Amino acid sequence: MALIVQKYGGTSVGSTERIRDVARRIARFRREGHQLVVVVSAMSGETNRLLALARDLSPDPDPRELDVVAATGEQVTIGLLAIALHSMGLKARSYTGAQVRILTDSAFTKARILAIDEANMRADLDAGCIVIVAGFQGVDGEGNITTLGRGGSDTSGVALAAALHADECQIYTDVDGVYTTDPRIVPEARRLARLTFEEMLEMSSLGSKVLQIRSVEFAGKYRVKLRVLSSFEDPEATSSGTLITFEEDDVMEQAIISGIAFNRDEAKISVMGVEDRPGIAYAILGPVAATNIDVDMIVQNIGASGHTDFSFTVNRTEYEQAMEVLLRERGTAFKAREIIGDNRICKVSVVGIGMRSHVGLASKMFKTLADEGINIQMISTSEIKISVVIDEKYLELAVRMLHRAFELEKEPVPSTA
Amino acid sequence: MALIVQKYGGTSVGSTERIRDVARRIARFRREGHQLVVVVSAMSGETNRLLALARDLSPDPDPRELDVVAATGEQVTIGLLAIALHSMGLKARSYTGAQVRILTDSAFTKARILAIDEANMRADLDAGCIVIVAGFQGVDGEGNITTLGRGGSDTSGVALAAALHADECQIYTDVDGVYTTDPRIVPEARRLARLTFEEMLEMSSLGSKVLQIRSVEFAGKYRVKLRVLSSFEDPEATSSGTLITFEEDDVMEQAIISGIAFNRDEAKISVMGVEDRPGIAYAILGPVAATNIDVDMIVQNIGASGHTDFSFTVNRTEYEQAMEVLLRERGTAFKAREIIGDNRICKVSVVGIGMRSHVGLASKMFKTLADEGINIQMISTSEIKISVVIDEKYLELAVRMLHRAFELEKEPVPSTA
Repeated sequence: MALIVQKYGGTSVGSTERIRDVARRIARFRREGHQLVVVVSAMSGETNRLLALARDLSPDPDPRELDVVAATGEQVTIGLLAIALHSMGLKARSYTGAQVRILTDSAFTKARILAIDEANMRADLDAGCIVIVAGFQGVDGEGNITTLGRGGSDTSGVALAAALHADECQIYTDVDGVYTTDPRIVPEARRLARLTFEEMLEMSSLGSKVLQIRSVEFAGKYRVKLRVLSSFEDPEATSSGTLITFEEDDVMEQAIISGIAFNRDEAKISVMGVEDRPGIAYAILGPVAATNIDVDMIVQNIGASGHTDFSFTVNRTEYEQAMEVLLRERGTAFKAREIIGDNRICKVSVVGIGMRSHVGLASKMFKTLADEGINIQMISTSEIKISVVIDEKYLELAVRMLHRAFELEKEPVPSTA
Repeated sequence: MALIVQKYGGTSVGSTERIRDVARRIARFRREGHQLVVVVSAMSGETNRLLALARDLSPDPDPRELDVVAATGEQVTIGLLAIALHSMGLKARSYTGAQVRILTDSAFTKARILAIDEANMRADLDAGCIVIVAGFQGVDGEGNITTLGRGGSDTSGVALAAALHADECQIYTDVDGVYTTDPRIVPEARRLARLTFEEMLEMSSLGSKVLQIRSVEFAGKYRVKLRVLSSFEDPEATSSGTLITFEEDDVMEQAIISGIAFNRDEAKISVMGVEDRPGIAYAILGPVAATNIDVDMIVQNIGASGHTDFSFTVNRTEYEQAMEVLLRERGTAFKAREIIGDNRICKVSVVGIGMRSHVGLASKMFKTLADEGINIQMISTSEIKISVVIDEKYLELAVRMLHRAFELEKEPVPSTA
């Protein structure tokens, strides 16, 4: 008997028929003797419908009140799922974030979880009751309803698993695991049986939208075993999905490269011919950060004759605003010969924990792209990934060629360590 | 400056455009210097949509979980209205039933209010903030979400007005007040400027669906001045609607008859030739009540030769079930020559506080119906009303003729008392 936290996303509970499927899956786990805490999102489309109503009333809705509205989406689902389970003769009890209580700070629309009271849930579990919790939401110290921001239900699931010391946190979604890359681009893409948290962090932050990045960080911090599974399979089928583990040794298949991630939501800005002096990076990026624009990759070349070029990427939706800020600050905060922007770029990354102990991977990546005549505009590396910025139009070609070059379609040979 | 509780029903907040109208109306009252607590229902259609989802999962959904689902309807509206008010530069703060807190018993789907904590609302009002409260809902002693049952938002409004000792509780709906009868049947029907609680109780329980009957009882008990107004008039217009008052002297216009109420949702059951002995009424109605079927009118004639006939009305939706119960119990709980049911009847009532001091009204009513050849099947009277059961097909004719006979289309002459 294990204590399992399961999280079902919006498409998994998108209709009463789908909710019934989820109930059947829960019933199977219950029959197998497991204790279950189930976290659910709003029915797909519901959160958008609610936010559209709010935006119809104000272009900039009050965040406290926006959370009051948005939190109803998950509240509907917990009640419906409990009703479905009751009708199958199972004991179940729903909790809103406030009822649990999932205490958060007061940063409405993007609150962070501070503490979880497990007393009620524990009593229910001990009584053989399935606990159903509204994802995405909590309550602050003053009793105000808060939400964790988009995708926050994953974080709710992981946080509950951590608080309850669950054996596993299962994230059910519309894919059956994490793939070596997007199968829509590379049909040979292969599902990974296991992946480390560090790899998953790189994969998800780079655009593999299987899991919300904060939930992965959370899982890593509290050493919660995460498993990604499909809710679209037969509820009676036993699938293993992809296990995301904090134990590097758990990763039996010692592939050097785990996958190819990519992101086409970015834009590149280059500030050319700036003074090569201490503080220049802050002079350029300070005003951008002050406008609450997130900067992703940052590259600065070695300068010549006291000048240097400085490039960075921002989210494409914030590109125009970032350009405005820089053009406004140019001449005061910093001097620059030219500011060039390009919002038709993409980022492609090769990710793998094995990279730590293997050399020559970067040059293999660069050669693969060069062979296809794809120009690399920016390069950035970390211990377990290499990212390049290229013209957006080459995205699919680059991902396909890299997937092939690193032979990701093949099952890795088990390590003999 | 007055403290006013306003309640807006589902059609009044049925779209974001309508919510904006409500916000404009609130803004006007705020400009006039009043303190405001606003109670809102779910957007029209929303509660039905939510209940349909639940029923799709179970023909008999768990009541606790049904309330979790249903309560979201009002929660959406409070957030949206607060957003609309904020966007107009007004201070406003929303509260769910649990946040206020409106403490109820644990009778899910039909909970009763036990206590209201006014501390938070009072602090907000003192700070110049408009308080917005979700109608129809509360929370029990264990923190479970409860709902007050259909139309419960009126009760929420009155209960808040009572707790806060508000100067007036304004119920905004899709009609601009209480009429002498349904204007769809009698175009000359006239809006009443004032009405006593007792009259309103008779009018609403008899099918004038302007106000939920429990809210009127509540208002009478706590001496809350109720005013029924239309939310469909220009938000800047000042209308007086119908004031429902506990002061009989407030009713300046001393009409003898206030209105003609009617109800076509009933069915009649006659148990003929039962023993005329003590306990026979209980023997017949006990099993019906035990099945949770509400009985409305009850009539027993004087018996002859030790037998009597016993008639009563039930809601038409419960007619079949009531007949089943009686046919099952016949021969054991009681003996009867015959049980006759008729679900094509209606009840028509003449209501008026002046009836107390005037005689001859009943015979005027009976003569009016007789002149039209309408047969009276049952008669029941109270201090301020006379009700008759007639064939459903005569409903409109009877109401029109009674309205004319009592000259309700004419403004009453102010009393010279």
